[in-house]
Amino acid sequence: MAAVAAAAPMIPVDEALRVVLSVADRLPPVSVPIYKALGLILAEDICAPDPLPPYRASVKDGYAVVASDGPGMYPVIAESRAGNDGVGVVVSPGTVAYVTTGGPIPDGADSVVQVENTEKVTDNVDGLKKVKILVEVPSGNDIRNVGCDIEKGAMVLKSGDQLGSPEIGLLATMGITVVKVYPRPKIGVLSTGDELVEPATKYLSRGQIRDSNRAMLMAAAAQQHCEVVDLGIANDKEDSLNKFFDAAIDSGIDVLFTSGGVSMGDRDFVKPCLAKIGHIHFEKVFMKPGKPLTFAQIIVNSENNKLAKPILAFGFPGNPVSCIVCFNLFAVPAIRHLSGWLNPQLQRVHARIVHPIRPDSYRLEYHCATVRWELDDGSGRPGFIAESTGKQMSSRLLCMKSANALLEFPATGKIVEAGTCIQAILISDISSSLMSKATDRTASLS
Amino acid sequence: MAAVAAAAPMIPVDEALRVVLSVADRLPPVSVPIYKALGLILAEDICAPDPLPPYRASVKDGYAVVASDGPGMYPVIAESRAGNDGVGVVVSPGTVAYVTTGGPIPDGADSVVQVENTEKVTDNVDGLKKVKILVEVPSGNDIRNVGCDIEKGAMVLKSGDQLGSPEIGLLATMGITVVKVYPRPKIGVLSTGDELVEPATKYLSRGQIRDSNRAMLMAAAAQQHCEVVDLGIANDKEDSLNKFFDAAIDSGIDVLFTSGGVSMGDRDFVKPCLAKIGHIHFEKVFMKPGKPLTFAQIIVNSENNKLAKPILAFGFPGNPVSCIVCFNLFAVPAIRHLSGWLNPQLQRVHARIVHPIRPDSYRLEYHCATVRWELDDGSGRPGFIAESTGKQMSSRLLCMKSANALLEFPATGKIVEAGTCIQAILISDISSSLMSKATDRTASLS
Ligand SMILES: [Mg+2]
Ligand SMILES: [Mg+2]
Repeated sequence: MAAVAAAAPMIPVDEALRVVLSVADRLPPVSVPIYKALGLILAEDICAPDPLPPYRASVKDGYAVVASDGPGMYPVIAESRAGNDGVGVVVSPGTVAYVTTGGPIPDGADSVVQVENTEKVTDNVDGLKKVKILVEVPSGNDIRNVGCDIEKGAMVLKSGDQLGSPEIGLLATMGITVVKVYPRPKIGVLSTGDELVEPATKYLSRGQIRDSNRAMLMAAAAQQHCEVVDLGIANDKEDSLNKFFDAAIDSGIDVLFTSGGVSMGDRDFVKPCLAKIGHIHFEKVFMKPGKPLTFAQIIVNSENNKLAKPILAFGFPGNPVSCIVCFNLFAVPAIRHLSGWLNPQLQRVHARIVHPIRPDSYRLEYHCATVRWELDDGSGRPGFIAESTGKQMSSRLLCMKSANALLEFPATGKIVEAGTCIQAILISDISSSLMSKATDRTASLS
Repeated sequence: MAAVAAAAPMIPVDEALRVVLSVADRLPPVSVPIYKALGLILAEDICAPDPLPPYRASVKDGYAVVASDGPGMYPVIAESRAGNDGVGVVVSPGTVAYVTTGGPIPDGADSVVQVENTEKVTDNVDGLKKVKILVEVPSGNDIRNVGCDIEKGAMVLKSGDQLGSPEIGLLATMGITVVKVYPRPKIGVLSTGDELVEPATKYLSRGQIRDSNRAMLMAAAAQQHCEVVDLGIANDKEDSLNKFFDAAIDSGIDVLFTSGGVSMGDRDFVKPCLAKIGHIHFEKVFMKPGKPLTFAQIIVNSENNKLAKPILAFGFPGNPVSCIVCFNLFAVPAIRHLSGWLNPQLQRVHARIVHPIRPDSYRLEYHCATVRWELDDGSGRPGFIAESTGKQMSSRLLCMKSANALLEFPATGKIVEAGTCIQAILISDISSSLMSKATDRTASLS
C-alpha cells in the first residue's frame, strides 16, 4: 500500500524549484564540432587567434588611391581583388589599383574611392587601363584596418555564452571548428497506469484511454533539444514499475520523466518505488494544477549498486495539463541548468488579461493563456495582452492548445478584473508562436 | 563583366518581402508520424473519433457513492480502479465502491467522496471492507462525465494549427498517429569568393579569410528546423559558379542561399549566373545593412530543362552582418510561408532604447540589439528595453553576438534619444535567449 504520500508536506512552488536547481548538477562538458553546437552553452573562453580582417581590406568595390592625389585621371597599375590578386603591388602617388569589396588594399594606398564615384576610361591602345577619380576622399576612406572587426587575442566568446548562428559564424571565422560545450541531458519518458493503451489503439475497451502524456512529454523534451528515450507504459503494479525503472536506469538517461501513479490511490506506486532506489526530495507542491508533483534522485539501481551519477526523476501527475505545466515550471529550468545555462529561470513578462479570472483560493494557480503583443494593451500603450485558453481543468488538454504562457495567480480566490496586469511565464517561443495567428496581422504590421 | 547591377532599381524593404512571399508557394503536404510532427503546421482538420473521457471517470482517489445517502458507514462492494476493475458493478443506495483518479465510476453511483474525507474501517472478520463517509457531497461531485474534456466529433485541431507538445498529446489521445502536415524546405548553402578558405584552415595566406557565412547560415537554417545541404565554396569565376549552381539544383533543394558575389565588383557573378537559369525578382533593397540582397527563382537547370518546381534563391551579401540580417528579414518569413504558416511575418514588439542611436539618413536601418523585459522600461512601467550590440558595421559579426532583435529605424539621420520607444523585430526565442544573461535575474524573479 502506497500510503506515505498522505503524510508528506506540501511545499511552495519557489521552494520546489530551488530544491530542483540545487540538486541538479551541470553535466560535464564535451567537445563537439561547431556544426553540432547550435544552441549549446560554451564551456570555455574563446580568444581570436588572428585579427579580422587579417589585412587592410576594402569596404567597397572601387579604386585604392593615395588620398592626397585628389580627383583626376590615373593609371590602374593593378587589380587587387579578393584572394591574392594584388600581392607585391605598391600604389605610389599618381597611380591607383582596382579593388573589390573585402579585397586587400595594396601597400602605398591609404584610401578607397567607390566605383560609383569614378568613370572608367576605355583602355588605351597600349593596354594600360585608366580611371577618372571624380571625388576627393579623406585618408582611410572605406578601408577596414587589420583587426578592426576582431582584434587579435580578443576574447570573442566566453564560457557561459549560448551558441546561436552568429556565434557559430564567429567560431568559423576564427578557425575554431571544435568547441567545449555543456551537453544536454538524455531524457527517458515513462507512462504509468492500468487504464493506458498505446495511441495507435483504434477501439477502446471499457476503462481504457490512450496514453497522451508520453507522446506529449517526448515532444516537449525534444523541443528542448534533448535526446529522448521512449520507456513505454508501466502497469500499476510494484513489480512492473520496478522493472521499468531498471530499464530506465540501464538506458543511460540523465533525467527520468514518469506520469501518473503519484496520487492518493492504493496502487500509486511511483513514490514507494522511487524511494527504494533513491531519495525523494518533495512529493507535493502548493500549486494548481500539479499538486502531486514528485521530485527524486535515483541513486542506486535495483541491485543497490550506486550509480556513477544520480538520475533526476520527475514524477509528473497523470492529468495531462498538470503534467505539462509541471514540465514547463520545473523540468525546463532543470534541463537548462544541466545544460550549463547561467540563468535557467523561465522568462516572465507582464500581460493585461482580456477577461476577468477568478483564481484558486488555496493554491498558487497557473492559468494557461495565449499572450500576444498589441499596439494598445488596454492602457493606451503597447504591451502584452493575455487571453485565457478557456475552462481550466487538469484533465482538459485543450487548455494547453496554443498556450504560450502560464499566468501566475496568487491564491486570493477573488476575481481579478479584465485589464489587470499579471505576471506571465513564457513557455514557448513567442517570436514564432504568436504570429501563427492570422488575427495578429494588424499588430505585427504596425 | 557583371555590370547589370548598377542599373537595377533599389526597392523598399516591405516591397521586397511582399515579392518574396508572393513568389514562394506552400510546399505540398506530406503524412508524417506524430513523433516527427513537432513544430509543423497541420494540413488537415482533426475531429475526435471518440469522447474523452470515454467513460464517467473519477477526478479523485476516493469512493463512488449515491450522493443522497449522505455521511455514514458503508460497505465497499467493489474496487473500480483504472483499467477494467469495476466492470459490471452496480452501486445501489447504501453501498459504495472504491475508485481511483481517472478510473471508471460504476453504474448507480452519482458522486465521488475523496479519500481525505473518509475514514477507513479495519476489515471485519467476514472480510467485507467498510468506510466511513465524513461529508455530504452534491450529485456529480468529482465526476468527469463522458466527453467533458473532448466531445465526440469535436474539431480539436484545424488545418493551419502549429503542432506543439500539447497538440501532439491531443493527437495521441485521439488515436491519431499519422498526420498531414506541411514539410519544411530543404535548403542548400553556398559561399562564394576567392578570398574564402575552409574554417579549419589554421594559417591564412595573404588575402585569405575563413568562410564564416556558410557555417552561420547552415546553423540559422537548422534553427528554423530545415534540412540543410552544405554546397561548399565557389570561386569568383562564372564557370565555377555555374557548376556549383548545377550541383545545388541536383541536390533536390527547395531554397538556395548564396553569400557574396552580389556587389559592384567585376567578378561578382552571382546575379548573371542566376539570370541564366532563372528570374531575378530584385537585386537591391533600400536597407542598411543588406543593400545588395538579391532574390531570384531558379527555373531551369544549366541544360535549360525546366525544373519540376522552381527553387527560391537568396543571394545574400558577403558581409556577415548583412548576410544574417537579410536571412532573418526575408528568408525566415519565406521558410515559414513554404512550411504552411498562416502568418509568416516576424514578430514585432516595442522597446525603449537605453542609449541614443543615430540611424542612417538614406536607407531604412536595422540595428542589432538585445531586448529584455524590465519591471521599469524607463516609463515607470514594465516593458522591453533594447540595448545596442555596439558599433554597427556590416563586416563586424560581433554586432550580432547575443542579438535577439533588430531595431527598425526610419532613415532620418537624426539622433533618436534614449528612452524612445522603437519597433523591435524579434529574431530569436526570447523565452530562452533573454534569460541566459545573469543580469536579468532581478527582472525575472520579480
Ligand atoms: Mg494512475
Ligand atoms: Mg566577393
